[in-house]
Amino acid sequence: MQLLGRLPGIGERTATRLANYLLGAPAEYVQALGKAIAEIQHHTGRCSICGTYTSGSLCSICGDPVRDSSLLCVVARPADLAAVERTGFRGRYYVLHGLISPLEGMGPEKILLAPLIELIERQSVTEVILATPLSVEGEATALYLAEELKSRAVRCTRIASGVPHGGELEYTDQITLSRALQGRREL
Amino acid sequence: MQLLGRLPGIGERTATRLANYLLGAPAEYVQALGKAIAEIQHHTGRCSICGTYTSGSLCSICGDPVRDSSLLCVVARPADLAAVERTGFRGRYYVLHGLISPLEGMGPEKILLAPLIELIERQSVTEVILATPLSVEGEATALYLAEELKSRAVRCTRIASGVPHGGELEYTDQITLSRALQGRREL
Repeated sequence: MQLLGRLPGIGERTATRLANYLLGAPAEYVQALGKAIAEIQHHTGRCSICGTYTSGSLCSICGDPVRDSSLLCVVARPADLAAVERTGFRGRYYVLHGLISPLEGMGPEKILLAPLIELIERQSVTEVILATPLSVEGEATALYLAEELKSRAVRCTRIASGVPHGGELEYTDQITLSRALQGRREL
Repeated sequence: MQLLGRLPGIGERTATRLANYLLGAPAEYVQALGKAIAEIQHHTGRCSICGTYTSGSLCSICGDPVRDSSLLCVVARPADLAAVERTGFRGRYYVLHGLISPLEGMGPEKILLAPLIELIERQSVTEVILATPLSVEGEATALYLAEELKSRAVRCTRIASGVPHGGELEYTDQITLSRALQGRREL
């Protein structure tokens, strides 16, 4: 129960419920689950190019020859890569595995710049899309990367912040609505 | 209870609770509330310029001489005007009091264009910010207005759609994330 309770989003009560379920579940399933969890880090590593989780040395996106290599989307985590991928984006990615967050001991030096710069040069990237979250940490990281890449022959762009699809202005927070006004575009 | 239950966001149970509360509340308060509700439409009308609710013939914004008259923000409802106002916007407004919605019997002909065009000309408006919601109806209305104003010497802009402030990409819906990518801006 203690170990289950450390999983994200699982509190004491859910951990108890899961433990009770496991005690009564078919032994075969419980064994298979335990084995899969114990071995997940052996079978899954990081892609040697973009850094996302993959079972080989190269992920399916970096191994895909028809992707647009000139467009590089920088995300904080593999889950964000999956979210951008669902929109139909057909460029390539780089996963930071973290954001600048001094309070959590993540200074700018923890962001791996060297492989990103190498990737930009090797793939002749012309535009880096900074798709870190719109949180304080995500914004700080995007600004830091834009600053670090300023001297290179590459455009740095930031994904738009604004009112989400279907959103009512009345229920939109002040900062988001300010940004939506600032980021208005010609129709 | 039937009448209370027709208020937005108030279901049968809340209506019952409110009715019971009113039965036991101080008579003075109940009288004052009833009177205020009965008279609200007599005392509050629409501003003769922008159309928002006001107790005079002119609202405090249209009566304010230091506002930037060249910037006109078009919103669907008075509540949206209040939301934009909270961001510190210092231009002027026009309230449509509705959106194009064929299913609800609101065709484009129900949008009052004449007073909007008159306002644009009289105040020498140079930019119309279309701040209707990011819903299907809001988008249709923005496109309709941009089309109708195309022949006039005025820029039409649309507020940005994108990931809201603090938003994680993982939990952002596909359409919003697509728009955030499309609407990306140089950093």
